[in-house]
Amino acid sequence: LIRSSGLEPGVAPFTERTPRVSAARRLTRRVERDKAGRFLAEGANALECAVELAQRDPRVINEVFVTERFATRNTDLLVRAGDVGARVSQVTESAAAALSETVTPQGVITVCELLDRPLAEALSGAPALVAVLVGIADPGNAGTVLRVADATGADAVLFAGDSVDPYNGKAVRASAGSLFHLPIARSRAIPDVLAACTAAGLRLVAADAYAEDDLDEAADTGLLAEPTAWLFGSEAHGLDAATASAAHTALRVPIYGAAESLNLATAAAVCLYASARAQRVGPPSGGRR
Amino acid sequence: LIRSSGLEPGVAPFTERTPRVSAARRLTRRVERDKAGRFLAEGANALECAVELAQRDPRVINEVFVTERFATRNTDLLVRAGDVGARVSQVTESAAAALSETVTPQGVITVCELLDRPLAEALSGAPALVAVLVGIADPGNAGTVLRVADATGADAVLFAGDSVDPYNGKAVRASAGSLFHLPIARSRAIPDVLAACTAAGLRLVAADAYAEDDLDEAADTGLLAEPTAWLFGSEAHGLDAATASAAHTALRVPIYGAAESLNLATAAAVCLYASARAQRVGPPSGGRR
Repeated sequence: LIRSSGLEPGVAPFTERTPRVSAARRLTRRVERDKAGRFLAEGANALECAVELAQRDPRVINEVFVTERFATRNTDLLVRAGDVGARVSQVTESAAAALSETVTPQGVITVCELLDRPLAEALSGAPALVAVLVGIADPGNAGTVLRVADATGADAVLFAGDSVDPYNGKAVRASAGSLFHLPIARSRAIPDVLAACTAAGLRLVAADAYAEDDLDEAADTGLLAEPTAWLFGSEAHGLDAATASAAHTALRVPIYGAAESLNLATAAAVCLYASARAQRVGPPSGGRR
Repeated sequence: LIRSSGLEPGVAPFTERTPRVSAARRLTRRVERDKAGRFLAEGANALECAVELAQRDPRVINEVFVTERFATRNTDLLVRAGDVGARVSQVTESAAAALSETVTPQGVITVCELLDRPLAEALSGAPALVAVLVGIADPGNAGTVLRVADATGADAVLFAGDSVDPYNGKAVRASAGSLFHLPIARSRAIPDVLAACTAAGLRLVAADAYAEDDLDEAADTGLLAEPTAWLFGSEAHGLDAATASAAHTALRVPIYGAAESLNLATAAAVCLYASARAQRVGPPSGGRR
């Protein structure tokens, strides 16, 4: 069992001082992730998703560290990890805690290769729905929008400008595995991202709390049924002026009550679901109101 | 100006040791909030919202602490606070920091009376849309759902069972003022909450990731256009079995991609907006798909 799971028998568990563990630990910092081209994904669900992706692209998993406690309770998963060629090593509880960024570590850390693709590749195959995050700062928001985009069946998530690192530990956890489910691309050059979206046949729709038209109107006119790249701006300042004016359309989430606005993740959820529904229902057949 | 803003002239700024400041500081703990019947709302936006509510109900604001720096930059707001009879006192920067739970305090803390109302009062006036949070644990989620419910024009937010304290500092901040915008009620007795919703003419709709029917179908059949109390369960376990079986209907947010589920706040946003739109569009006039 141990052998089939990829765990080498008779090898003492790695400690915090084992070079591969301390190399992995450095990946909690962005600069080290960029340098090594790798990131950490914590927990059983992340390993599940990584293994599933590795069935199509075996390079995804660099290696897996597990505690004995985790290994004995998750033999099936580790066997599947072994099947896709992942190197699985046992670590001490304290090494697992050192690699973890959570309060109650599960005892499993997967070292993964960065998942970025070139923009054109992420947008290949006539995408219908794409989320573009422009200059967002909060890792929890990045991960939550990835999860929502995945749930709506979006074709890609793009990080444009000076955005948070989607491989930040908090972002990876908030994505709940969705980071492994759909193509992501990053570019500091916002115009390149917008041009790639336009070239892919997508309408650029800016989410803008001050836009004249709202989502309901856009659903009624059929605009939302078109292939769409939603542009979401920073938590503090929204979209920068240049990006906003490059968009083909600006839409706001309608506010029916006294709230001034929504936060980024909930606004993105409402926008992306409105598009997903409109694209499935198809254009309206006539005046419906 | 100082006089008209309610700030007493010639009084030395309060310090951390001033009894009213140390009494306020204790309100960062739930047990002390429950005992005193008060909570802290931090920041200029919270004071704005509290002042607006105090125009209808002057008891809302117990007192306001401001730094000199904040007072000189926000005289209009403080004049309005004075107009609704709020007692405004100057505190030192370090007293303001002691009262703050954020990294960069704005220099204004409002001590407010708890805003709870009895269930029947929160549900008076033929409500059309209500959010019920059953046993949720995360204060950020509580505040975010309050904000979303407010944005959708919901009539009330109810906290049922063993739920997080909506007056927790993180919840208050996440609500972005919405805590002051719509009626809230709390009850540990879940059946009482459900009975009150039913008595108010609301259909109890459980948000359940494993439900057979989804939001799109419910929008198409017209079910979502009915007066609705959405029941949202805990982040970890969803709704308890008794609550789920007491609901009239269970609906899931459709998942079009590979994500397993949504997080609580984004799911609530999608559900509440689907209801708000359906209630505005009205029941469908015929088969549309």
